[in-house]
Amino acid sequence: MLSDHDTIVAPATAPGGAIAVIRVSGAKALTLCDRIFRGRTPLAEAAPYTVHYGTIVDAPAAEAESPRIVDDVLATVFRAPHSYTGEDSVEISCHGSSYIVAEILRLLTAAGGRMATPGEFTMRAYLAGKLDLAQAEAVGDLIAASSRAAHALATNQMRGGYSSALETLRDRLLHLTALLELELDFSEEDVEFADRRALRHTMEEIGTEIDRLRDTFALGNAIKEGVPVAITGAPNVGKSTLLNRLLGEERALVSEIAGTTRDVIEERINIDGVLFRFLDTAGIRATDDRLEQMGIERTMESIRRARIIIRMIEAGDIAGGRIEDSMPGVRKDQTLLTVINKLDLHPDTTLPTGAIGLSAKRGEGIDALRRALRKAVPTDELYHGDAVVSNSRHHAALVEAHTSLAQALDALDAGLPTDLLSEEIRDVIRHLGEITGRGSITPDEILKNIFSNFCVGK
Amino acid sequence: MLSDHDTIVAPATAPGGAIAVIRVSGAKALTLCDRIFRGRTPLAEAAPYTVHYGTIVDAPAAEAESPRIVDDVLATVFRAPHSYTGEDSVEISCHGSSYIVAEILRLLTAAGGRMATPGEFTMRAYLAGKLDLAQAEAVGDLIAASSRAAHALATNQMRGGYSSALETLRDRLLHLTALLELELDFSEEDVEFADRRALRHTMEEIGTEIDRLRDTFALGNAIKEGVPVAITGAPNVGKSTLLNRLLGEERALVSEIAGTTRDVIEERINIDGVLFRFLDTAGIRATDDRLEQMGIERTMESIRRARIIIRMIEAGDIAGGRIEDSMPGVRKDQTLLTVINKLDLHPDTTLPTGAIGLSAKRGEGIDALRRALRKAVPTDELYHGDAVVSNSRHHAALVEAHTSLAQALDALDAGLPTDLLSEEIRDVIRHLGEITGRGSITPDEILKNIFSNFCVGK
Repeated sequence: MLSDHDTIVAPATAPGGAIAVIRVSGAKALTLCDRIFRGRTPLAEAAPYTVHYGTIVDAPAAEAESPRIVDDVLATVFRAPHSYTGEDSVEISCHGSSYIVAEILRLLTAAGGRMATPGEFTMRAYLAGKLDLAQAEAVGDLIAASSRAAHALATNQMRGGYSSALETLRDRLLHLTALLELELDFSEEDVEFADRRALRHTMEEIGTEIDRLRDTFALGNAIKEGVPVAITGAPNVGKSTLLNRLLGEERALVSEIAGTTRDVIEERINIDGVLFRFLDTAGIRATDDRLEQMGIERTMESIRRARIIIRMIEAGDIAGGRIEDSMPGVRKDQTLLTVINKLDLHPDTTLPTGAIGLSAKRGEGIDALRRALRKAVPTDELYHGDAVVSNSRHHAALVEAHTSLAQALDALDAGLPTDLLSEEIRDVIRHLGEITGRGSITPDEILKNIFSNFCVGK
Repeated sequence: MLSDHDTIVAPATAPGGAIAVIRVSGAKALTLCDRIFRGRTPLAEAAPYTVHYGTIVDAPAAEAESPRIVDDVLATVFRAPHSYTGEDSVEISCHGSSYIVAEILRLLTAAGGRMATPGEFTMRAYLAGKLDLAQAEAVGDLIAASSRAAHALATNQMRGGYSSALETLRDRLLHLTALLELELDFSEEDVEFADRRALRHTMEEIGTEIDRLRDTFALGNAIKEGVPVAITGAPNVGKSTLLNRLLGEERALVSEIAGTTRDVIEERINIDGVLFRFLDTAGIRATDDRLEQMGIERTMESIRRARIIIRMIEAGDIAGGRIEDSMPGVRKDQTLLTVINKLDLHPDTTLPTGAIGLSAKRGEGIDALRRALRKAVPTDELYHGDAVVSNSRHHAALVEAHTSLAQALDALDAGLPTDLLSEEIRDVIRHLGEITGRGSITPDEILKNIFSNFCVGK
């Protein structure tokens, strides 16, 4: 089992700060720290949620009259079950020197502690029932969040709104199986406790909710990783100039020679709390240049991966009726923004409906484009606390749940025996349970995999 | 004045950890935090040295029914004067996300806090009399310490042993001036409270102690910055091979062609708690190659900067009586280690007295060389808590104190009037006082300069 009785230790802060924090958790956390901590009173006698000033002394010399002092520290005491892990815990706040942190960790492990594996503190919190799996995974996402939207995503999930939405679905399904299994108990008498039409209706409702959750993954994942945006258009239409304008500084190589941008450069911009990943793409045109052809192939791949496609057209081409359109089809889950550039050269251009007029060179129209980009990412529901899926493990489980539910509906329509129908519904319950880890025992391998993505000390 | 009544805020941990700590200090620290912290009770009512679980909420929405929650945090309360700065303080421990840290800092500054300048917390501790200047400077050194010796250096200085050694000197000098100034009060009567022979003796004693402290700077600075070691010898004698052996991995370019190592590469190695900076140097020989000549010039500069010089000689040259010696003179403050390399090719070589036999290629004799290097850096006194100077500002003040004391002795010998003699001794006192900042008011410019080298949050 992953759960053991070791007292674990790890640095919880990154190297290089003014202070560093070392976490100690486990049944022996307090006595272990007392072996190297000298304060007014031993930590083992301290009240929970209290902070103690003292010194860390080199353990082998602790019995000596003047043991070597490693650092002046503050030790905070937490007592089971009121701690992050649910165990007795100590947080040692020391000077942020790599030598001091290494020394304290050395002394703690010499005194009987074990270095924690990545995510082990959070795994203990999960095993102690402090968090479900989805909430535990959200802790990792929260630490990695760099935008308001990604933060809201992780916060909603961590605070349990997401888990309770899944629990509601599971409860409804459990109610259905209870009714069906009641029929099995009375199978001799051929009764139907679950009206088949009402059953179908409820299953369809649940299916709609599962599909809705599953479909939020496209948005959730884009928000978590950064919304991919492809800027497309003919060579020299001003794609790099536009990207630089959006970035507010010179990043990509801008040149007057058509076809100079051959590499796909990825830049990240935060617009009003949402992170966008801009894929600067090569110009699309018929060419015999092998290198340029490879650039175009990569551009096509970027367009496929994009959630938002900015299609740039030169104002002069509209005026001259020369709109070359080699754009691949835009999918339903993609947003197409048409922008007409170089309005400075052709100020009298009549803009097509819905198009945004720009002079990337002069910076005109950039704010309108920013607003359009931001509007293409709906965050209202997210900011109101609605459940949005951003974890690919959860998405995979929802896809499985959808498949199992479809099979259950088929079984119902085919008039299969009640026990088989009940079994199909139990599959849906199982897949939903995998997400939160509730109602089933999550295999150690899956737990290890989940928590190994965490940083040490969390 | 540098001291103001602002409540200052800053991150105290480096970005990228599992948790982050934000420091708040000043008269309004508790009420300021209460504007964005929601716990069981307000922090303003909390006992000192207690930790409180709660949430950070977005201040503008704090009055709303469900304000936006930024993070779940732990807030530790310190009350004046029992805190690092001597002021009311709060340490907020939050999830280690750059977004969350930025949000909390934004909310704290919006609520009336000011972002702290580098070292401002420690400067406040100094202004509150919690530390003297030398101790405050040691805090910065402690955070930067990466070896046991550098750590001991900073710890001794921070714990005040160093300051009290200086205070003892100042007290003795103050006693002398008190006696001399007593004579001035009775100047009409031409009495001598201070016996001139005893006075001279005491001044000489103090001078010896000042010079001793001043001379520890060479060792202290070397330990703090890393002890500079130059490896010298004829081309192809095996200098790069030796460096790689000491490093335990391949770093420098090793080649069979004589004269290939032209750049001075600096490598750092920790041997038994002391950091050594190895200057890999070009081979020294007569050459017409302009590039190689430049390399040799840099080598000569490295030898001048070195504290330890490793002089490598090929075993074959000893056997053949061909010891070419283009070594510049070794200074008294330098240690020369002679090593005879390539003993694998000439196993019967008779080693000169004190020389270390090596086969850098096979790794034989490397441990003996490591021990010799370590022995060349005396740390016993340092580890016993003796005062060792490592700060160039302190060194400069000690040099000035030495000069002033020499002038005072001259004044004494020349039989100058008591008031002039007293004035000279006061100069010595002033220079010693500059180190700890005691007995005089340190100009703001000097304070700013000292603390601007600190990191933010300390």
